[in-house]
Amino acid sequence: MTLVHDAAAAGAATAADRHRAALIDAGLLIASGVRGVYGLSGTFERVIEQFEAYVTRIGQEREPEVMRFPPLFARHSYQQTDHMELFPNLMGSVHTFTGAPTDVPELTRKRLAGEDWTSNLGPTDVMLTPAACYPLYPTATGILPEDGRTVDLRAFVFRHEPSNDPARMQIFRQREFVRLSTPAEALAHRDYWLEQAERVLRSVGLDVRPVVANDPFFGGAGRVMGASQREQTLKYELVVPITSAESPTAIASCNYHLDHFGRAFDIRTADGEIAHTACVGFGLERIALALFTTHGYDPGTWPASVRRVLGPC
Amino acid sequence: MTLVHDAAAAGAATAADRHRAALIDAGLLIASGVRGVYGLSGTFERVIEQFEAYVTRIGQEREPEVMRFPPLFARHSYQQTDHMELFPNLMGSVHTFTGAPTDVPELTRKRLAGEDWTSNLGPTDVMLTPAACYPLYPTATGILPEDGRTVDLRAFVFRHEPSNDPARMQIFRQREFVRLSTPAEALAHRDYWLEQAERVLRSVGLDVRPVVANDPFFGGAGRVMGASQREQTLKYELVVPITSAESPTAIASCNYHLDHFGRAFDIRTADGEIAHTACVGFGLERIALALFTTHGYDPGTWPASVRRVLGPC
Repeated sequence: MTLVHDAAAAGAATAADRHRAALIDAGLLIASGVRGVYGLSGTFERVIEQFEAYVTRIGQEREPEVMRFPPLFARHSYQQTDHMELFPNLMGSVHTFTGAPTDVPELTRKRLAGEDWTSNLGPTDVMLTPAACYPLYPTATGILPEDGRTVDLRAFVFRHEPSNDPARMQIFRQREFVRLSTPAEALAHRDYWLEQAERVLRSVGLDVRPVVANDPFFGGAGRVMGASQREQTLKYELVVPITSAESPTAIASCNYHLDHFGRAFDIRTADGEIAHTACVGFGLERIALALFTTHGYDPGTWPASVRRVLGPC
Repeated sequence: MTLVHDAAAAGAATAADRHRAALIDAGLLIASGVRGVYGLSGTFERVIEQFEAYVTRIGQEREPEVMRFPPLFARHSYQQTDHMELFPNLMGSVHTFTGAPTDVPELTRKRLAGEDWTSNLGPTDVMLTPAACYPLYPTATGILPEDGRTVDLRAFVFRHEPSNDPARMQIFRQREFVRLSTPAEALAHRDYWLEQAERVLRSVGLDVRPVVANDPFFGGAGRVMGASQREQTLKYELVVPITSAESPTAIASCNYHLDHFGRAFDIRTADGEIAHTACVGFGLERIALALFTTHGYDPGTWPASVRRVLGPC
């Protein structure tokens, strides 16, 4: 069993390495020397902008409020969530130097000696944003309007999972539409977007497939949580081959959170009940990678039907 | 002296608090509970998009390469710079949990007990990006083309300087045009953009003033560095009143770095000399704040001349 597993892992690593090298050679990704952290070419960025403009047009049907959060999330809000228990290995905690000018030479000495200079740092008031909708919830504490709220978000999010697979980045953008409302409305939002997101992705030529999914919870308690999430079919992903045909990659997800965030941040519906929430999230870098992998590295040669939807390349 | 200083500081804080409260009341900024970290409304974000589209049109004259880096910078590259010596107080070092599932309960216990749970974390391979052009330089190691390079960048950058002044954010976007070339070409780029940036900002109705400036170097060595940077007139800022008329805020800067980054990352011109670099940086959130402060909180009521340049509001 171990041998089979290792061989599969080695094969997958090779496919990932080849795909990564091809994207870097083509100039679409710019290597930073850190696995899963890349610069993007103008062509890559333009595809993301075009896909986002398309999603904006689709999303406007439901007249969402637009909010844009930076890649940082207040530490005190992070501590109100259970992210630390469920995904401690993915977190990004921001630390800085809080010493006096007289302490700087010691910092420099450690750096030059190759010692751990970060032991001189202390935590700041911020974390990296774990998912685009996290910063929204603490701002929604209190009573929702009668019809609840629908919010359009985009943010860089961080997941500490260094990988050679170009489709598994440590930092990437999520475009989300979030509903905060009653259980029925939240579930309806999830189901509306499950259909809509599949239509959107198929219309740009991506042969996506919906699968019941669960979040990558950490450790033993995580396995129980994951099984429960799957059994209740709370989360669906739309997957498509990017680096591997056998293990397609999730490029969008539709997630019903029950009262998870409503309870953590005391968000209530007009009738005083704990609000339920749901979101659709589009992984923008992954969608661009899926488009380049499916249609080729030059958007000028993409099928006319795709270019019609995305606009002039 | 101390009393006068304190009174001035208290007065400034009050102006900052009032301005911050007005922007939050108007819904343009969304408070996160952390000083200098905000969500932005759709209106705010749209002004940034429109200003950027304008700058893109202006910048295209010089046919820059477009590159987009995420808010993270490789730690090994950071360690090749002297940022740690010059701005240790501004840095953002990203840390994560590297323990086993059996260590999670202790993390949780500390969090719930209000103890410092971050002592269980370790540094990752990344820092937050200190300035939009930093991630470019390590990718440019080697020999430049005959004419050097001109690169168009935009990135979120981090500065740990919590403040009540809404114009002093901890995380914000810089749009930059960078030149890597000979000393003469780098200096010409800086001077071209000093004129061009003033024209751009004046054309959207911002009454900017160029001033010789220096970076906020830390501690005693920093004072020497700052004086030297001023004497050599390496850096100019374009300032305009945002929170205070007496202390106008820098909304763009034009900076000639000499061989600072060329040397750190071994970037050479075609004739083998260490490359010199220069950049113009537009502070996008600050420019939007300057527009709102100058023309009012509703872009629909801005002067026709401004709306003509920025496009339909």
